[in-house]
Amino acid sequence: MKQNTVLTTTMRTHTCGELRVGHTGQTVILCGWIQSIRNLGGMTFIDLRDRYGITQLAFNGETQPDLCKQVSDYGREWVLRATGTVTERYNKNPKNPTGDIEIIAEKIEVLSVSDVPPFTIENDSDGGDDLRARYRYLDLRREIVKNNLLFRHHIAIEVRKYMNDLGFVEIETPFLVKSTPEGARDFVVPSRVSRGDFYALPQSPQTFKQLLMLAGYDRYFQIVKCFRDEDLRADRQPEFTQIDCEMAFVTQEDILQTFEGLVKHIFKVIKGIDIAPIERVTYADAMKYYGNDKPDTRFDMRFTELTDLLQHRDFTVFKQAEWIGGIVATGCGNYSRKQLDELTDFVRKPQVGAAGLVYLLCLPDGKIKSSVDKFYAQEDLQHVATRCGAKPGDLILILSGKTEKTRTQLSQLRLEMGQRLGLRAAGTYKLLWVVDFPLLEWDEETGRYYAKHHPFTAPKPEQEQELETAPETVNANAYDLVINGTEIGGGSIRISNRELQERMFRVLGFSNEEARKQFGFLLNAFRYGAPPHGGIAFGLDRLCAVLSDAESIRDFIAFPKNNAARDMMLDSPSSISNEQLKELGIMLTS
Amino acid sequence: MKQNTVLTTTMRTHTCGELRVGHTGQTVILCGWIQSIRNLGGMTFIDLRDRYGITQLAFNGETQPDLCKQVSDYGREWVLRATGTVTERYNKNPKNPTGDIEIIAEKIEVLSVSDVPPFTIENDSDGGDDLRARYRYLDLRREIVKNNLLFRHHIAIEVRKYMNDLGFVEIETPFLVKSTPEGARDFVVPSRVSRGDFYALPQSPQTFKQLLMLAGYDRYFQIVKCFRDEDLRADRQPEFTQIDCEMAFVTQEDILQTFEGLVKHIFKVIKGIDIAPIERVTYADAMKYYGNDKPDTRFDMRFTELTDLLQHRDFTVFKQAEWIGGIVATGCGNYSRKQLDELTDFVRKPQVGAAGLVYLLCLPDGKIKSSVDKFYAQEDLQHVATRCGAKPGDLILILSGKTEKTRTQLSQLRLEMGQRLGLRAAGTYKLLWVVDFPLLEWDEETGRYYAKHHPFTAPKPEQEQELETAPETVNANAYDLVINGTEIGGGSIRISNRELQERMFRVLGFSNEEARKQFGFLLNAFRYGAPPHGGIAFGLDRLCAVLSDAESIRDFIAFPKNNAARDMMLDSPSSISNEQLKELGIMLTS
Repeated sequence: MKQNTVLTTTMRTHTCGELRVGHTGQTVILCGWIQSIRNLGGMTFIDLRDRYGITQLAFNGETQPDLCKQVSDYGREWVLRATGTVTERYNKNPKNPTGDIEIIAEKIEVLSVSDVPPFTIENDSDGGDDLRARYRYLDLRREIVKNNLLFRHHIAIEVRKYMNDLGFVEIETPFLVKSTPEGARDFVVPSRVSRGDFYALPQSPQTFKQLLMLAGYDRYFQIVKCFRDEDLRADRQPEFTQIDCEMAFVTQEDILQTFEGLVKHIFKVIKGIDIAPIERVTYADAMKYYGNDKPDTRFDMRFTELTDLLQHRDFTVFKQAEWIGGIVATGCGNYSRKQLDELTDFVRKPQVGAAGLVYLLCLPDGKIKSSVDKFYAQEDLQHVATRCGAKPGDLILILSGKTEKTRTQLSQLRLEMGQRLGLRAAGTYKLLWVVDFPLLEWDEETGRYYAKHHPFTAPKPEQEQELETAPETVNANAYDLVINGTEIGGGSIRISNRELQERMFRVLGFSNEEARKQFGFLLNAFRYGAPPHGGIAFGLDRLCAVLSDAESIRDFIAFPKNNAARDMMLDSPSSISNEQLKELGIMLTS
Repeated sequence: MKQNTVLTTTMRTHTCGELRVGHTGQTVILCGWIQSIRNLGGMTFIDLRDRYGITQLAFNGETQPDLCKQVSDYGREWVLRATGTVTERYNKNPKNPTGDIEIIAEKIEVLSVSDVPPFTIENDSDGGDDLRARYRYLDLRREIVKNNLLFRHHIAIEVRKYMNDLGFVEIETPFLVKSTPEGARDFVVPSRVSRGDFYALPQSPQTFKQLLMLAGYDRYFQIVKCFRDEDLRADRQPEFTQIDCEMAFVTQEDILQTFEGLVKHIFKVIKGIDIAPIERVTYADAMKYYGNDKPDTRFDMRFTELTDLLQHRDFTVFKQAEWIGGIVATGCGNYSRKQLDELTDFVRKPQVGAAGLVYLLCLPDGKIKSSVDKFYAQEDLQHVATRCGAKPGDLILILSGKTEKTRTQLSQLRLEMGQRLGLRAAGTYKLLWVVDFPLLEWDEETGRYYAKHHPFTAPKPEQEQELETAPETVNANAYDLVINGTEIGGGSIRISNRELQERMFRVLGFSNEEARKQFGFLLNAFRYGAPPHGGIAFGLDRLCAVLSDAESIRDFIAFPKNNAARDMMLDSPSSISNEQLKELGIMLTS
């Protein structure tokens, strides 16, 4: 905001956040909600709240008995318009920016009364999740929620500013598009005019932004809603917001540099933090060292592979394992039996799913005590410690089994240890580019390949010829941006050639007819001069959450849905009328 | 953009719009599309186009025979990467900003070939509407379309800047909402998780922005897509973009001042035009003087009511008329029979629907010649001229019949005359606030009242008590912003009180149960302290069109739908699979 005076309206002269000692003696008019009302020995005080702060109104029982009487039956959340004089306070409140003054009230108008709210409008509310969801309009009054939405607004403003300065054009793409059920499920919209046909809501503007590149727009971005009809996990929403970007006449390096710039700008202006050049790791190394394509690199604790070191003895578990790997928990060599049991319990949880855990305690005297002492000699264990780089006083934790599954389990254990050791502290931000993703992944269940990112991602040029012969080995110039173990963005260089796109669809199991029906417009567009292009999309909801060290994206969405994709406040989805169904030419089967 | 150097990538050093004589001697790399290719006496020239301009590449047949041969079979819309040296041209082209230089090409890479495009990529394309819609990605390459989208981007940037500076917060409201089929038809979205239930796409964020006011956000805006499943008229789209705004603790005057500021800002920075304080007219006066609630006030030509002047003679048409009114076409007193017949034909067109037209030609000698000379004395006609303020040399045009219908017809004739007289010239902008709209309008067909704006608009406080007793007389603090006869925005002060909102729903024919089912969340919200609030929404598509003196909003939408709500490029809406239908629990009835 330029200045607070822009907030003056015919109804108020100031906000509840701006008065200071310098205003003393001025007659002001404030509007707001009653945060609290207190009667203290003849004086009545009302804390009046608006978006900008809280200001104390004071009523003197002796000199203003009528006014005191008038306000005595007011309650929390009533809306007032208060006229009075700014006065320096005797008892200042240093915690409140307006705490040096109060308003000696002269006239109070009640703009709206309020029932007693179903929960307290405080950062530490007594309302549970469901109650607050149902009364979201009251939940939104809490300072903490308000600050989240303002935070989001500021990020969006800064993103647009930065992108505009770099010549990116924000272009709106349509919401009523075509169902292309590759990837997640589409939400569909029945057409009344073309009965029996449906639009779909976009899962992302992917094909549109590619068409814009083909149309010569060169640098596109959009902050845009996207839709996925997925079974919701804890922190997913059926509608979510992307910062969607695409560039033409670029290589991967141009894209990484450009958006590294964007992210640094956001950190600088929003958080006041200078971000160092962002490290890069290949997908293969991320899996090898962290068992995870979005590692939390606020702490190191990399995997050490131990398969070759530990299969020569008679310990069946390891002997039969495809992969054995360990991590070092520095300074945990003194863990008690109870602590070690907790870790075993952790890896045995169904969400982790390991059978058990092998530990090596590196004692201060250089000896190693382990849970597999009867199978391995001290020398074997010392070899393990040496390879892991463990020192006396450290703890080595080892998991074994099928390679991928075990890496995933060890990754979870690594994060758990990071948590226990305080290595994942709020306020620290470690950014990472994960690059060279595989182009495809095999799905056992359906017996086919799926695109790791999406079907428009290009194979690395030097691997194009292996697309049909060894699809699983082909990598892509695809990249994710990871902050503190959360993926907040991802993108790739796209296919810009009709033949290659058709080959890609075939590898993904599309018939020519299906490919043409669903993506004919794109295949056709490639006929008319397609520039090399690529892009990236960031999850705005998630970016807000990660920058705020918040648990849930829901805290940054004004009107979120719950885990059953329901809006508790609106009570939606809901039934529609028979006339509506009839007009749309559909009926319910259930 | 800060500077063009930000556009340098690993693939190009400059754009096709930035090179000047000052760059002479530099080796540059450009990327772009072939706009044209010409072979002139041993020299070959390629005009290379990108988003930023066109630069000429030159190939010398004598010194570069191989290169000339290489490019000889290139065609329009091929994508090239060209390396060469900037050279001052002998024949400069002053029409092109890069026309002082050309690039002596040294190396050409073909990034993509192109089929011959189905229409020419020129402002004056040879492609018809349908063809260009099907190949929208090629249509978007035309400079005129590109400039429209850049224009829209700049308006959006400036709107956000202005609103942010005034403390408005952009808050995203949901797209999957609840069907409330008051007003236009909703698009609905079947829920898979809650089978048989539906979401709706929002017709506007109206109730959400009101809830944000109740939640204390005070100044909200959003540039947001809205959806209406209406039978499309020429210039409607099923999805359109609103600049949606709301303020709390304000009166109508605050809102008008704030958004007058916004509109002036846009005109100033986008068009370089200073807009005078915007005139205001009441709805009643707009209907009285222009027969229209969105008059084009670039020209005056107000209606003069003549009913009382013209019913005393034996001319049945006027005698039986409920209303008689005329307009003066200055300087048209010399209209020929043919011209007058054209005007009669105009008012008789089915879209206008008048039975005929009475004219009075005010001759230079002061006499009046009219089409009703046998019914009226010269003196009668002089009375008409005097009341109309017509001078010798002017033409008076008179229509008669039912009041409302005739006013509408005369309004159409007025616009036609304005057009003929060149009074509606492009590049002139006349802004107007139309205020004091009626709250309700009666619909003969359904025999009930409808909200003129929407059911949340407040009656004028002094007329609240007549809501049930004389609903048709009640006005609202509702306002439209009209530019050159096009409504580009509208809003109102809202109801902020539960009892009044319930009364309003009753007047609109809602049962208590219906009101609670559809809008219970809002009625409940009013229980907990509702500030006075109001707002406005502008049609961004239409604002762009009006500011550009363009006919259609479609020119400002990257991927518009046609009049049958169909995306010709995507071929959407389209059928979906039986599995999709089954999962959603719906089947087709047709």
